[in-house]
Amino acid sequence: MRLAYLGPAGTFSEEAALAQAARDGAVLIPLSSIPALVSAVETGLADRAILPIENSIEGTVSATVDLLIHETSLQICAELVLPVRHFLLARPGTTLGQIRAVKSHPQALGQCRRFLERCLPAAEQIASLSTAAAVAEMMQSGDDSCAAIGTLRAAELYGAEVLAWDIQDHRTNMTRFIVLAAHDAEPTGQDRTSLCFTVKRNVPGALVEVLNELAAANIQMTKVESRPMKSALGDYYFLVDIEGHRRDPHIAEALARMAEKAAELKIFGSYPRHEIGIEEARIPRR
Amino acid sequence: MRLAYLGPAGTFSEEAALAQAARDGAVLIPLSSIPALVSAVETGLADRAILPIENSIEGTVSATVDLLIHETSLQICAELVLPVRHFLLARPGTTLGQIRAVKSHPQALGQCRRFLERCLPAAEQIASLSTAAAVAEMMQSGDDSCAAIGTLRAAELYGAEVLAWDIQDHRTNMTRFIVLAAHDAEPTGQDRTSLCFTVKRNVPGALVEVLNELAAANIQMTKVESRPMKSALGDYYFLVDIEGHRRDPHIAEALARMAEKAAELKIFGSYPRHEIGIEEARIPRR
Repeated sequence: MRLAYLGPAGTFSEEAALAQAARDGAVLIPLSSIPALVSAVETGLADRAILPIENSIEGTVSATVDLLIHETSLQICAELVLPVRHFLLARPGTTLGQIRAVKSHPQALGQCRRFLERCLPAAEQIASLSTAAAVAEMMQSGDDSCAAIGTLRAAELYGAEVLAWDIQDHRTNMTRFIVLAAHDAEPTGQDRTSLCFTVKRNVPGALVEVLNELAAANIQMTKVESRPMKSALGDYYFLVDIEGHRRDPHIAEALARMAEKAAELKIFGSYPRHEIGIEEARIPRR
Repeated sequence: MRLAYLGPAGTFSEEAALAQAARDGAVLIPLSSIPALVSAVETGLADRAILPIENSIEGTVSATVDLLIHETSLQICAELVLPVRHFLLARPGTTLGQIRAVKSHPQALGQCRRFLERCLPAAEQIASLSTAAAVAEMMQSGDDSCAAIGTLRAAELYGAEVLAWDIQDHRTNMTRFIVLAAHDAEPTGQDRTSLCFTVKRNVPGALVEVLNELAAANIQMTKVESRPMKSALGDYYFLVDIEGHRRDPHIAEALARMAEKAAELKIFGSYPRHEIGIEEARIPRR
């Protein structure tokens, strides 16, 4: 089993890939973009690919969702929810007082705004292409006045020291990853199904008419989101996650009725739910 | 009229602020974060603030939506939709063959991926905190092997030359901005109302039950999105935009019925719709 992930090593995507590999013993293949991950599975370079799909702070990962809607018939066979943890990393022996600049991906800098304002108000913020690149650059620079925001794994890979733990503003920042493969998963009784649809006419009630089929069959929606179509402003795709497997009889019937009422309906796959409790999500201080 | 916007000068936010100022003659005040914009209006430093709320490629701007949900009672009094245009900028006299590195905000680099792969496959990509900062740094570096991706306005501000026009991958990449003030707008007959709500029980049909009130009153929804609550995973806020003004009688009645069925309902304001046609959105080559 070969699992492709969004490299380089030391990012959250690698953390998710390592967690997934711990479940299924996969060998990891780092690739450099989200479209490359999909191509790798489609062409047999990899058996599966793990991609971020949404973050509780930043929202939907557009690149992933757009591939699912427009470009691939690969199916979701698993999901994985990981808490996002940020660490202030520096060259070994550095103290907080020495830090004049902090490097990271702008999203990570944004997610640690409160910590940076309080503890490093005078430090210059410098952007990097990834948190892992920030840690690598900081270590290679030989500059003890520079720190980086990154993962524990990046600290380990590049020999950085942890100056501060869990510096992210929100204690419940989670990222949800999906695993794509040629086929989705067998029913387990604790499943989720992801799909998208468009409505026939852009009129009041057209969306509710489709969603009513889920309500009538007592099926729980766990997500709904409208996304503008690329071709025409004002028209939307609706992304929906529901509890249950597409082969469960009541789900299969409801999906068939939804497909009749919708203009187009595409099922991204059914897979075991990965639920993470609020206690698990709330990270203790060290 | 003083209008606060997300600086520095030369970003899309400044472009939106200039477009808004052309409507109402406002004086512009640049501030450095989205929370600062809200505080400025709340404390009287500014009369209004203009903030990005969603992008057709990147989706919802979480920082703006989270402030509307949790932190402010300011109202939306206007919206503005702007096409996003990216330009390859360099020091005057530079040719494409000299370029070894391209600087920009990672989001802008991502939105020009196809152009960069095709026309500058060997160039190193370097991250900056904003597109405007990328252009400023490139101009100050004195380095003719470096280009930046930025706005036309940044080219003008910093004296850069345009090497390539409209290098973004999608021809219909739009950003929607909202203007916040103490009060929302008077009805014009062509309005939109933005709101959020939570449902009483996290059970099948609870969402549809609330949305049904809109369908029953023949009110068109132009957006619906579920966002996880920060306090508890699995519970959601629903963000909804509808056509019409909250003071239109049939809207007022439907909102009252929705408020009864919802656990909480907060109206962000009613304001004139800014519709932008697909032709206007599709940017001609030069």
